[in-house]
Amino acid sequence: MKIAVLPGDGIGPEIIREARKVLEVLQKEGLAITLEEAPLGGAAYDQYGSPYPEVTQKLAREADAVLLGAVGGPAYDNLDRPLRPERGLLAIRKDLNLFANLRPAILYPELANASTLKPEVVSGLDIMIVRELTGDIYFGQPRGIRINAAGEREGFNTMLYAESEVRRIAHVAFGIAMKRNKKLCSVDKANVLETTEFWKEIMIDVAKEYPEVTLSHMYVDNAAMQLVRNPKQFDVMVTGNIFGDILSDEASMLTGSIGMLPSASLDANNKGLYEPSHGSAPDIAGKNLANPLATILSVAMMMRYSFNLEAVAQRIESAVKKVLADGLRTADIFEEGTRKVSCSEMGDAVVAAL
Amino acid sequence: MKIAVLPGDGIGPEIIREARKVLEVLQKEGLAITLEEAPLGGAAYDQYGSPYPEVTQKLAREADAVLLGAVGGPAYDNLDRPLRPERGLLAIRKDLNLFANLRPAILYPELANASTLKPEVVSGLDIMIVRELTGDIYFGQPRGIRINAAGEREGFNTMLYAESEVRRIAHVAFGIAMKRNKKLCSVDKANVLETTEFWKEIMIDVAKEYPEVTLSHMYVDNAAMQLVRNPKQFDVMVTGNIFGDILSDEASMLTGSIGMLPSASLDANNKGLYEPSHGSAPDIAGKNLANPLATILSVAMMMRYSFNLEAVAQRIESAVKKVLADGLRTADIFEEGTRKVSCSEMGDAVVAAL
Ligand SMILES: CC(C)[C@H](C(=O)O)[C@@H](O)C(=O)O
Ligand SMILES: CC(C)[C@H](C(=O)O)[C@@H](O)C(=O)O
Repeated sequence: MKIAVLPGDGIGPEIIREARKVLEVLQKEGLAITLEEAPLGGAAYDQYGSPYPEVTQKLAREADAVLLGAVGGPAYDNLDRPLRPERGLLAIRKDLNLFANLRPAILYPELANASTLKPEVVSGLDIMIVRELTGDIYFGQPRGIRINAAGEREGFNTMLYAESEVRRIAHVAFGIAMKRNKKLCSVDKANVLETTEFWKEIMIDVAKEYPEVTLSHMYVDNAAMQLVRNPKQFDVMVTGNIFGDILSDEASMLTGSIGMLPSASLDANNKGLYEPSHGSAPDIAGKNLANPLATILSVAMMMRYSFNLEAVAQRIESAVKKVLADGLRTADIFEEGTRKVSCSEMGDAVVAAL
Repeated sequence: MKIAVLPGDGIGPEIIREARKVLEVLQKEGLAITLEEAPLGGAAYDQYGSPYPEVTQKLAREADAVLLGAVGGPAYDNLDRPLRPERGLLAIRKDLNLFANLRPAILYPELANASTLKPEVVSGLDIMIVRELTGDIYFGQPRGIRINAAGEREGFNTMLYAESEVRRIAHVAFGIAMKRNKKLCSVDKANVLETTEFWKEIMIDVAKEYPEVTLSHMYVDNAAMQLVRNPKQFDVMVTGNIFGDILSDEASMLTGSIGMLPSASLDANNKGLYEPSHGSAPDIAGKNLANPLATILSVAMMMRYSFNLEAVAQRIESAVKKVLADGLRTADIFEEGTRKVSCSEMGDAVVAAL
């Protein structure tokens, strides 16, 4: 099994280095994986003049799974839009057809204090957000900035979902709900937007194939409120690309430790790209301060979803829980009474706990 | 000055009844206002077969300000889309050109416990969200559900902002920032959507006319996170219609007492529609349980923005603070050690405190 490793920008290289340590242990134990690196985002622009150059495309397409650090940074803010690091991320998602983005929001009991929410509101929080990732207003045509009929400049984008796009993400979401508490909340703005009215209609249709799952519907503005008011009401949420972008970030911040949260972006055959939910944190890049746990937990998701190695996934997750229980903390999750460690010390500790 | 009073649906009529009491006091004291009622939303559909019938249009157009309760309810969920109560709300906003929606998120010290966030994170919270209300994907054409070239059904909507639409909301937002702490955060998704890249460019241009205001920019996903992580970093936020819908609801829920939050929707001449930020709460409608304070505070906003009567606005706001300080609470904000009152008792108490 071939894993494409894309360190990216900012803290990307340092968190990937720690995640690689975990993969290399598995490799030494006999797991048949090969690791090959290529640049993405700003690093790729620096080297090849494109945020998703051919060498990276070739590697990513051949690979069975992709492990990504993070992309972006202020050095690239003044580039022309198509050259910016984020475009590399959007391009690889689309190129590999990674339509199903799974973003768990889990509160680790050891980190309960990190949340800005009251303990009773978030303790035990465990939400899975399923975000459609290759459609919606992110990719819809036409788009751009033009002069309108009245001679005025205007910016425009197209929100768009075809039936097959909604059906396939619905099946992913219902499938995940079946493995959890069988509660699925589909988030839309069906009272205003036809696209999401259509989305809702298809969700209701697909629900017929999953009679055990309780499907509910919520408007996106209400969902943004309910995540603050009572997040534990949710089990699995499914929504489109733009609403999912917003709500998954909000949900992850409820836990107070976004440095802990992994993500998976899957195609129809469980090929996937795995990356931390957090960004490239340019302010602490290169300082060995970053939290590598979200990236290491992304490796666990890779084992689970792309390689169907549930036991290996759980072993990695248990190792992470053990280092937390042992009181080890990177700066982002440090508090009185715990032991502050660097990025590489954290990686080593997880390897030792495996 | 003529005020159109639109009670609407659900708890609308009962909260409006209490707000009217305040207006009638002012009237008796000599303020030259007249009050005239008309239906909107479901009530209008029931009576006239349309959520924004001609009689309401006529009254709303003639009036200097509109006071609205709330619209919508399960009884109307199966109506054809154009007949649903929310469409009445969208129609009156567009018809009266109410492009500037002001939604404060204020934490009342007396209600600090109601927030799900830790006290230190939200104490003293006072954010003003300026949401563009007549453009964006809410009204952009083309939109609908169609069969595409591949013979598949698809739903689609158009996000759209013309330069003049962005300029005018920018001026409103900068103007408000000037009267507050001179910090304005414009929320966009400029890394993905051309519409909001265009938005950002115009914000930067308008900023030149307000050198005292510090303008910052934040991606919408990050804004959704930052509102949870550290909401007190914000003073005034400005954003488009759909992002504003989501973020203003999230922000209002941070205070834990959405039943307290008013809103104003203004045109270019300060004609405005004033309504509580909460909805029609059909579950408690007709039970005299609703919290009328958001509606009463909406009257205060009306005095401030449409009638330029700052002293009257503050007098109403002080009366509300007084009843809170006196320990009166409707059910939604009740806690141990306070006195639970009904909707009408709360209205009477505010009148007595005026
Ligand atoms: C960087 C950006 C293009 C991206 C997105 O909007 O999808 C990010 O916010 C994410 O959620 O992965
Ligand atoms: C009811 C609905 C159409 C409306 C909106 O989306 O604008 C509401 O959510 C609001 O914020 O006033």
